[in-house]
Amino acid sequence: MKKISKVLIANRGEIALRIIRACKELEISSVAIFSEIDVEGIWVRKADECYPIMGDVVQAYLDYEKIISIAKKANCDAIHPGYGFLSENADFAKACEDNGLIFIGPKPEHIELFGDKMASKVAMKKVGVPVLEGTDEPIINVEEGARIAKEIGFPIIIKAAFGGGGRGMRIVRAEKEFKDMFESATNEAKKYFGRGEAFIEKYVENPRHIEIQIIADKYGNVLHLGERDCSIQRRHQKVIEIAPSPRLDSATRKELYRIATKAMFKLGYESVGTIEFLVDESNNIFFIEMNTRVQVEHPVTETITGVDIIQRMIEIAEGDKLQFLQEDVHFRGYAIEFRINAENPQKNFMPSVGTISKYLTPGGPGVRIDTSIYTGYKVPANYDSMIGKLIVWALDWKGAVKKAKRALDEFYIEGFPTNIPLHREIVRDQDFIDGKFTTNYLDKKMEIFTLHSEDNIKKEEEKVANIMKLIETINKNNLKVKH
Amino acid sequence: MKKISKVLIANRGEIALRIIRACKELEISSVAIFSEIDVEGIWVRKADECYPIMGDVVQAYLDYEKIISIAKKANCDAIHPGYGFLSENADFAKACEDNGLIFIGPKPEHIELFGDKMASKVAMKKVGVPVLEGTDEPIINVEEGARIAKEIGFPIIIKAAFGGGGRGMRIVRAEKEFKDMFESATNEAKKYFGRGEAFIEKYVENPRHIEIQIIADKYGNVLHLGERDCSIQRRHQKVIEIAPSPRLDSATRKELYRIATKAMFKLGYESVGTIEFLVDESNNIFFIEMNTRVQVEHPVTETITGVDIIQRMIEIAEGDKLQFLQEDVHFRGYAIEFRINAENPQKNFMPSVGTISKYLTPGGPGVRIDTSIYTGYKVPANYDSMIGKLIVWALDWKGAVKKAKRALDEFYIEGFPTNIPLHREIVRDQDFIDGKFTTNYLDKKMEIFTLHSEDNIKKEEEKVANIMKLIETINKNNLKVKH
Repeated sequence: MKKISKVLIANRGEIALRIIRACKELEISSVAIFSEIDVEGIWVRKADECYPIMGDVVQAYLDYEKIISIAKKANCDAIHPGYGFLSENADFAKACEDNGLIFIGPKPEHIELFGDKMASKVAMKKVGVPVLEGTDEPIINVEEGARIAKEIGFPIIIKAAFGGGGRGMRIVRAEKEFKDMFESATNEAKKYFGRGEAFIEKYVENPRHIEIQIIADKYGNVLHLGERDCSIQRRHQKVIEIAPSPRLDSATRKELYRIATKAMFKLGYESVGTIEFLVDESNNIFFIEMNTRVQVEHPVTETITGVDIIQRMIEIAEGDKLQFLQEDVHFRGYAIEFRINAENPQKNFMPSVGTISKYLTPGGPGVRIDTSIYTGYKVPANYDSMIGKLIVWALDWKGAVKKAKRALDEFYIEGFPTNIPLHREIVRDQDFIDGKFTTNYLDKKMEIFTLHSEDNIKKEEEKVANIMKLIETINKNNLKVKH
Repeated sequence: MKKISKVLIANRGEIALRIIRACKELEISSVAIFSEIDVEGIWVRKADECYPIMGDVVQAYLDYEKIISIAKKANCDAIHPGYGFLSENADFAKACEDNGLIFIGPKPEHIELFGDKMASKVAMKKVGVPVLEGTDEPIINVEEGARIAKEIGFPIIIKAAFGGGGRGMRIVRAEKEFKDMFESATNEAKKYFGRGEAFIEKYVENPRHIEIQIIADKYGNVLHLGERDCSIQRRHQKVIEIAPSPRLDSATRKELYRIATKAMFKLGYESVGTIEFLVDESNNIFFIEMNTRVQVEHPVTETITGVDIIQRMIEIAEGDKLQFLQEDVHFRGYAIEFRINAENPQKNFMPSVGTISKYLTPGGPGVRIDTSIYTGYKVPANYDSMIGKLIVWALDWKGAVKKAKRALDEFYIEGFPTNIPLHREIVRDQDFIDGKFTTNYLDKKMEIFTLHSEDNIKKEEEKVANIMKLIETINKNNLKVKH
C-alpha cells in the first residue's frame, strides 16, 4: 500500500491547523494553500510549505484544478479537504484519483450518493435505516397530497416548494384536517410566491439532533465512535455539540449504533463520516442526512474516546487497517464544544470583523482549544464566521457544564464582538443544565436570554488598577494594611 | 459535616489559579492573597476576592498569622496551601484548626511525621514499606562505619556530613574496599570543610524515580491513582513527569500500588499525598520520602485517570466520602508534563526575568496548559523560576512523545529565555523516545544536547514577510502565479 509522506490541505482556518497538527504527529509533511487575504493565517506559518492562490479569495479554496496542480508540483501524495469547500465534492475526489493523488476521505461514489438527499434516503432505507419520509416532487393536487400524507403518517408538515420564512407552511396532526390545511397553505404560497406547489414531509415534534460518528477502513471494519447531540442550533446552524447525549436512553443509543454501523458496512463505506438523525419524544429515529467528511464537532468524540479522528482518517486513506476493535472503544465522561463565532449577538448575530487586540484563552484540566486566531490576527469578512472552538470535558455531565461556565468566563477576545455571551447564557440556563433541549431550544430561549457583552476582563483590569492605586497610597503615606 | 463555601488560597502563580479553577467548578468562593510585586498576577484577578500582604514579597506567602487573620476576616471556612510555602508546615495546619478553619490537606501529625526524613523512614518500615537505609547520625569512626555499611548492604555511598558538591563522596561496591574509601572520604571532607564526619547510605545504581499518587478520605478509603515517573531531573529538580511510567514492569507496578495503599491505610492518612520511591535495575523498591500535599506534577495523573485531584482534595477536607472505588479508576494512555521555567539553558540555567512581549500557546487535541502567565505579564525575580506547565496526552507512549514534539514547537514565549529548548532536545532523543531513562539521564545528556534558542516563530514571521513581499510584487506588476 502506498504510504502518505506529504499532504496538501485544501482548506483554511482552524481545520487547516488541525490537519497540520495531525500530520506533524504522524511525521507527514504538510502543504498549505492560502488566498491573498489569508497570508497571515496561522496554518500558512505552521505548514512545512505554503502556496498562494491569487484572485478571488473564496474561489481560491474551490479552484480544484489549481489546487491539484499545486499538489502535484509540490510532490504531495495526498490531499485533505477538511470540511466545507471541496470536502463533499465528488468530482474533486475523482480528479484527485485521476491525478494519482490520494483523496483523504470516502470513495467518490459515496460522496455523490450522500450529496443527493433523495438518493441517500432511498439507499439508507434499503439497508434498514428508518428515514424521514417526504415527497421528492412538489405537489399541487390536494387528493395526491392527502394520499401521500396518509402514507407518511401524521403529523406531517406542508412546506411551500418555492417559498420560505414560514409562509405557506402548515403542520397537520390528523388526516381529517389535511384538506383544509393543504388548501390554505397552497393559497398562501400562491399569494406570496406566485406558485402554490408544496412539499409534504414527516413532522417530528421537539426532535433532538443525534448523529453517529462512523470510522471504517478499506477492509470492511466499520466502527462507531458514539453519538453527538447537536440539538443546540440557531437557524439550523449548530452552536453547541455534546458527546455523549446527556438524555438519550440506552436502548435508543444502542439501536442508533447498530443501524448506523450495519448500514455503512452494507454500503461499503470507507473513511470517517457522520450519520445524522432526528430522535423524537417517543425515541423514534429518523435519518436526515449523512456527512461524508470530518465534521466541525469531531473534537468532542476525540475527547471522550481518546481516538484521534484526523490521524486515523489519514491512515485509512493510506490503506491501513484499523488498529482497534469496537470493544476497544471506551467512552469516558462528557465533552461539550462551543463554536466561537465572530458575530454580534446584540445585533441579531451579524458577522463581525476586526483585529484581535487582546486575547486570553482558558486553560487547566479538561479544556481544549482549536483555533487559528492569535493576538494581532485580523479576521477577514470573506469566510464563515466561526473562528475557533472551545471544548471542555469532565467525568460527569454536571461537571462538564460547570467546567464550561468557568472556561467561558476566562475566554476573552478583544477587537470585535463574538457569540461568547450567548454561550455564557446557555450554560447558566436550567433546561440546558438538566439536559432538556431539542432543536427548538435556542429559538425559544433567545427571547429570554440577555446577551449583554459582559466584559469580565475589563472588570478585572479595573480591580487591579484600584489595587495598584491602593498600594501606592499605602506606600506614599507609609500606612499599614491591618489584618 | 461542615461544607466549605469560601476558600483562601495561601499561594501564588499557576497553582493558585489551578485551585481557583477547582473552586469555581465546585461553586466555592475563592480568596487570593498577593505580595506587593504580585498585584498583576492572574490569580489576583480570577479570585472572587483578593487581599494584599505588604512587606517582604516572599514572607507574604509564609506569614501564617497574617494569612489566617485575612481568612477569618473574609469569612473563609478553609485554606488551601497549594505546594511549597506553607503546604508542609504542620504548625500552620494546626493553627488553621485552632482558628476554626479547615486546612485542605492531611492531618498535622502526618505533615509532621513526613517532614522528618528519619522518623518517616522508621514509620514506613513499620508498615511494610522497603526504605532506602542509611545512618541517621554523622559517623567518624571507621569500624562503626564498616559495621553499618555491612548492615545496609553494598553498594553504599559515603557522603560528607558537612560538605557538598561531590567532595568527600565515595561509592563503595564491596566490603573489602570500605576502609580505604571511608578514610579517603573523611580526609577529603576534613580538608575541604574542616570536619570529616560522613553519612552512609544505600547506593542505588541508575534508579528510576517512581512515585505513587494516593487519595484517601476520612473513612479509611485509601486509593492510588497510579504512578508517575519523574526520573528526568536536573540537579534533583524534576523537569519532566510522566504517567504511567513507560518502562515499569507490571509486577513492580502492582507491588508499588499494594505497599503504598497498605501503608497509608495503616497510618490513617487522609487527603492526597505522594509516596516517592527509587526503583533500581533489578526492580528493587526503596522509599525515599512522602509529600503530604498536592504536587506540581498532579496534572499527568488527572489526565490519564480523569480524576480532578484538587476538587476531590477539597471535598475530602469537607468530610465527603470518596465517590469511587479502586476498580472505578481506569487508566487511559500516556501523559507527559514539561515544566516551563524562566531560565537560560545557554547560561547554565540561570533564572531569567522580563516582560512577556509575545506569547503563543499550543492547542488542539491532547494539550493542556497550566500557567499564570499572559502577554504583558512581568515575571518577578523573587520566586521559583517555574512559570507554567505543558501537559500532553496520547493513547500510546510514542504518540505522546510525538504530540510533545509538536506542542513544544508551537510554544513561544518572547521576553526572556526559557527551558523550552531543553525540552525540545529531550523529546528528540532516542533514549527518551525508547523510555530508557534513569535519574542520571539528564546529567549525561546535557553534554551532548545543543541548547540553541531555536526560534520557530521568528522564522515563521520571516516566511510570512517574504510571502507578503512576493504578493505585493505580483500585484504591482500584474503578474500571474503559475501552478
